[in-house]
Amino acid sequence: MVDFNITRCAHAEFRVTDLGAARAFYVDALGMLEIDSDGDRLYLGGLEERDKYSLVLRKAASAGVGHIAFRVATEDDLEEIARVYEAKGLPIRWIEANTLEAGQGRAVRVQDPNGLPIEFYHEMEQRERRMQKFEEYRGAHIMRIDHFNMQVPNVQAAYDWWTQEMGFYLSEYTVSDDEPERLWAAWLHRKQNVHDLALMNGIGPRLHHVGMWLQDTSSVLRACDILASIGMRESIERGPGRHGLSNAFFLYLRDPDNNRVELYTNDYIIPDPDFAPIKWKLSDPRRATFWGNYAPRSWFDEASLVEDILTGELLPTSDPQMAGRPDFIT
Amino acid sequence: MVDFNITRCAHAEFRVTDLGAARAFYVDALGMLEIDSDGDRLYLGGLEERDKYSLVLRKAASAGVGHIAFRVATEDDLEEIARVYEAKGLPIRWIEANTLEAGQGRAVRVQDPNGLPIEFYHEMEQRERRMQKFEEYRGAHIMRIDHFNMQVPNVQAAYDWWTQEMGFYLSEYTVSDDEPERLWAAWLHRKQNVHDLALMNGIGPRLHHVGMWLQDTSSVLRACDILASIGMRESIERGPGRHGLSNAFFLYLRDPDNNRVELYTNDYIIPDPDFAPIKWKLSDPRRATFWGNYAPRSWFDEASLVEDILTGELLPTSDPQMAGRPDFIT
Amino acid sequence: MVDFNITRCAHAEFRVTDLGAARAFYVDALGMLEIDSDGDRLYLGGLEERDKYSLVLRKAASAGVGHIAFRVATEDDLEEIARVYEAKGLPIRWIEANTLEAGQGRAVRVQDPNGLPIEFYHEMEQRERRMQKFEEYRGAHIMRIDHFNMQVPNVQAAYDWWTQEMGFYLSEYTVSDDEPERLWAAWLHRKQNVHDLALMNGIGPRLHHVGMWLQDTSSVLRACDILASIGMRESIERGPGRHGLSNAFFLYLRDPDNNRVELYTNDYIIPDPDFAPIKWKLSDPRRATFWGNYAPRSWFDEASLVEDILTGELLPTSDPQMAGRPDFIT
Amino acid sequence: MVDFNITRCAHAEFRVTDLGAARAFYVDALGMLEIDSDGDRLYLGGLEERDKYSLVLRKAASAGVGHIAFRVATEDDLEEIARVYEAKGLPIRWIEANTLEAGQGRAVRVQDPNGLPIEFYHEMEQRERRMQKFEEYRGAHIMRIDHFNMQVPNVQAAYDWWTQEMGFYLSEYTVSDDEPERLWAAWLHRKQNVHDLALMNGIGPRLHHVGMWLQDTSSVLRACDILASIGMRESIERGPGRHGLSNAFFLYLRDPDNNRVELYTNDYIIPDPDFAPIKWKLSDPRRATFWGNYAPRSWFDEASLVEDILTGELLPTSDPQMAGRPDFIT
Repeated sequence: MVDFNITRCAHAEFRVTDLGAARAFYVDALGMLEIDSDGDRLYLGGLEERDKYSLVLRKAASAGVGHIAFRVATEDDLEEIARVYEAKGLPIRWIEANTLEAGQGRAVRVQDPNGLPIEFYHEMEQRERRMQKFEEYRGAHIMRIDHFNMQVPNVQAAYDWWTQEMGFYLSEYTVSDDEPERLWAAWLHRKQNVHDLALMNGIGPRLHHVGMWLQDTSSVLRACDILASIGMRESIERGPGRHGLSNAFFLYLRDPDNNRVELYTNDYIIPDPDFAPIKWKLSDPRRATFWGNYAPRSWFDEASLVEDILTGELLPTSDPQMAGRPDFIT
Repeated sequence: MVDFNITRCAHAEFRVTDLGAARAFYVDALGMLEIDSDGDRLYLGGLEERDKYSLVLRKAASAGVGHIAFRVATEDDLEEIARVYEAKGLPIRWIEANTLEAGQGRAVRVQDPNGLPIEFYHEMEQRERRMQKFEEYRGAHIMRIDHFNMQVPNVQAAYDWWTQEMGFYLSEYTVSDDEPERLWAAWLHRKQNVHDLALMNGIGPRLHHVGMWLQDTSSVLRACDILASIGMRESIERGPGRHGLSNAFFLYLRDPDNNRVELYTNDYIIPDPDFAPIKWKLSDPRRATFWGNYAPRSWFDEASLVEDILTGELLPTSDPQMAGRPDFIT
Repeated sequence: MVDFNITRCAHAEFRVTDLGAARAFYVDALGMLEIDSDGDRLYLGGLEERDKYSLVLRKAASAGVGHIAFRVATEDDLEEIARVYEAKGLPIRWIEANTLEAGQGRAVRVQDPNGLPIEFYHEMEQRERRMQKFEEYRGAHIMRIDHFNMQVPNVQAAYDWWTQEMGFYLSEYTVSDDEPERLWAAWLHRKQNVHDLALMNGIGPRLHHVGMWLQDTSSVLRACDILASIGMRESIERGPGRHGLSNAFFLYLRDPDNNRVELYTNDYIIPDPDFAPIKWKLSDPRRATFWGNYAPRSWFDEASLVEDILTGELLPTSDPQMAGRPDFIT
Repeated sequence: MVDFNITRCAHAEFRVTDLGAARAFYVDALGMLEIDSDGDRLYLGGLEERDKYSLVLRKAASAGVGHIAFRVATEDDLEEIARVYEAKGLPIRWIEANTLEAGQGRAVRVQDPNGLPIEFYHEMEQRERRMQKFEEYRGAHIMRIDHFNMQVPNVQAAYDWWTQEMGFYLSEYTVSDDEPERLWAAWLHRKQNVHDLALMNGIGPRLHHVGMWLQDTSSVLRACDILASIGMRESIERGPGRHGLSNAFFLYLRDPDNNRVELYTNDYIIPDPDFAPIKWKLSDPRRATFWGNYAPRSWFDEASLVEDILTGELLPTSDPQMAGRPDFIT
């Protein structure tokens, strides 16, 4: 039992090489709300959210991810979490309120045992929710951030950390086809839906994608139509389709820097703390795409490097313990 | 058999007292494309259309309808149609190309035997279709004009005129509950769907509404949400709901001058010239709204006056031969 | 702080006078899954659920509600909850496993201070989830039970009980227009969406409706179409429309015994325990129906009587402390 | 100008090796209505249709197509059409009423100059339309047959025949990328939408697919979900996606005999006889799938053989004059 309460997936910070190009993709095409900006950063949000932002685009020399952030229930939770990382000798960095990210209270950043750059915060400037400002709905009608999906070389170790030390619950998972079964991927949640954090076998530490939640399947199709209409069809990497795992209707997109976002809807709620997790075999043809299509190789091979929270340098990666993609992906 | 070919419902000219208020409704809220304007007129169109416009908003001292227009297949058809009206001694007015309406070729306006102000034209300036400019979709995603609905005191006479003299076909109709059955309303078409022109028993000659075609039911719901969101909820008069007659999913709106438009989708095509018309009894609870709701009194009682094509004055009206609304509308 | 954990709204037991007629409504028309039956009861469920059932139809001499049930996180929570009711001298009844309801573990029933008949349980037989058995989707594609809405004479007292003694959180609420503001209605949740339990001013104790969650607006429209098609259009009482409060797209139906169900979708999640509740004025025209329509009188005046948990008799009701419906409902 | 009036695409006859397997696909999975059957044939229809059937499944030793049928406006049109084929010395076969296909009046079958087996008829037994029997909607909610798509070795010759001799109109077309442009494919219509008949470059004469019209995109997605759910995911060959050409939202399926059907919606109407056709370059990445995906090789290479109308033997094929698939399909 952990002594703190992580409430949910909260925001991601993407490194982008061209803020204007990134803005054209996220704001003009996908319809995210542009909430604020300073010289180096654009702060974007969804229609349902009250937190000031859920996606930060930061000007940088190369693509990648600065950090991903979870909200915690109280300020005290920050101290409790810091103690856990300190006890393991892991890197920690306190960020004073409003120094790096506009509107955010005091935060702590850590490098988890897998190398993932994580921020925890409690206080955040609130803004007016736009859910009922229907005249402002544009693009994919993105409602809110939903989850992070990370690639790590050792999924079992990462799973152990996030469930045992950080208090996450398992909703669904994938195991290898051979015996004994090995964990290929795990979907973990704190808020009551399928995930706040997914861990997948692969070259890592890397961020595979950030998931954005939409209200319906037609919003996913509208995103495809708009992207193709404005000449961004090459940003469409995979889908639209339905996942077997999570039941979500999805679309995977690459932003102009090749950072990946998933448009995601039609999953389900998990209000029961004793929800029996759903197991999938890696080779089940309905697992990844319920309709049977395979993901392209790029979807397995490519992902965003992540920063060292202390130096801001992009971290080197390690090869996964299992093959980097299923052997049926040629 | 008629000697000319009316191809379809083409455009309507609404009198509006405040062009800015009308623009806020049709363009900002409903998402119609603003194609052109001159001092007195705004020219609006739908996403699927190539004709320069399908709705003209004309500044006037009071609400009402200047004319409704049908396209014909050839220039010669205009002469043939004019001969029919001349032979009956009905008012005719030739409009030279580009004199009253931007981009329109030579046209002929008539006052039909019921007093309805009708324009026929063949040539029209074409514009780029926006159907695949998905980034321009706004509001109700209005695709195209679909039909006119007119109130007339003598539906049988109007029906006879439009089917026998103008070559329209009957798709569906409503008859009185008493015997012998009398015609209460008729849905007539030239293009291959339920109607280009509906004729309803009522105080007339008046235009009851112009129907705009949408691609799906969610576009109707989006219109409701946006109108409520921006403070125009009082423009919603009836619906959303499904018509029994036509099967269409509908919403009736009143513009700032109380001219009425219907958002309309989910009807069907009629490619067979020998389609057997569908008869409905006036009191059938599924006829008007399939789900059983009644229309409000205003929907029966209120409609737009129409102009004398020669003087531009609004025409006086006569009471209908049957009661102005069904007796179950209290 | 309470010493137990109510996890969610779980099931309702409706009294019905004709099991066959009720089955035609819930199973044949709305598409709920028929899971089990015994002589007196039908057990129905939704596509997303794993609990054996979420709606029990019990044959009875008159309409009404046997009880509403919440799930708790552990068996021990039952004892803790029982202690609270005992301490207040409120009626309590222990139900041994599988004695009244098939598949349910030991449960405790109470009569809350407002007279509401509540059941708490932890164990329930699990069944295969049908969420990905798409060939079994029928009718409204009901995914799961979402909430109970209860009418009580003293909303403030009921609100105090459920928030202070039972641990519920406030998401949205309605206050009177006069000063000082009085609480007209409150939406309370344990699972992370708008509500598990709503409390409304009115004649009570009564159940106003049970809310069933759908995945999209088109499922609501499909329900209307099917009900009208099979001759049950009179079961449609209000809607479809969008609520301002909760943002949900809704439809209110009356079953053959006049028990009321709401088809409900498009609300939002509340993962933050410190979510700032949203306040609505009773007369705000966008509160109840965002598009401005008023609910019919029956919606305010009529509701289902509830049983005495000890005797099974239907409880007498009291008039509300405020007028039973807003004064703009004539 | 032709002396007869072909009104629309009407029905196709598929050869199937296992009527039970075909029924499971078309009726149980896709939800087509089973209207009638005799020993060798199943007669299926759509919800919007009144003709007795629009798809005939005929037991045969191998897959393929018996014929495709167009309706004509009058009985006399049959004689006129027969004269055209006779004058060219093409095969003709008169089918007396109710001898081969249940409910059909006298018909004439021809082999067109490209070898395509075509039937023309006027009279057909009518059945009750099920469009407002919403409780009968199943699977993909197939409303009606929309079009035939045929592969022929010489598209230009086939285009000339169908436009000059049979009176079809061109809506959209594809030309080769090299100069001078050569016709790669043509979409031709008689009813007022994008096509009743498409002609594509390829090994032929073959039927590439029959298009079935749905009312909305969600019906296409539902079909994918159901097919995957019941173990028929391998029937999904291409899509869902949006066509650039026609704007339709589509899904291509292979039935258990590998005959191909397209689920198709969101195209547009063409009420103007002088509609200016839309030209696409073969290599335009938005032409086939607006979102940029390529069709699989099987989509270009595989199609259904067609029968000799006199002998019932499957006709041999010829290679196309241009390469069988675009060179960007590897």
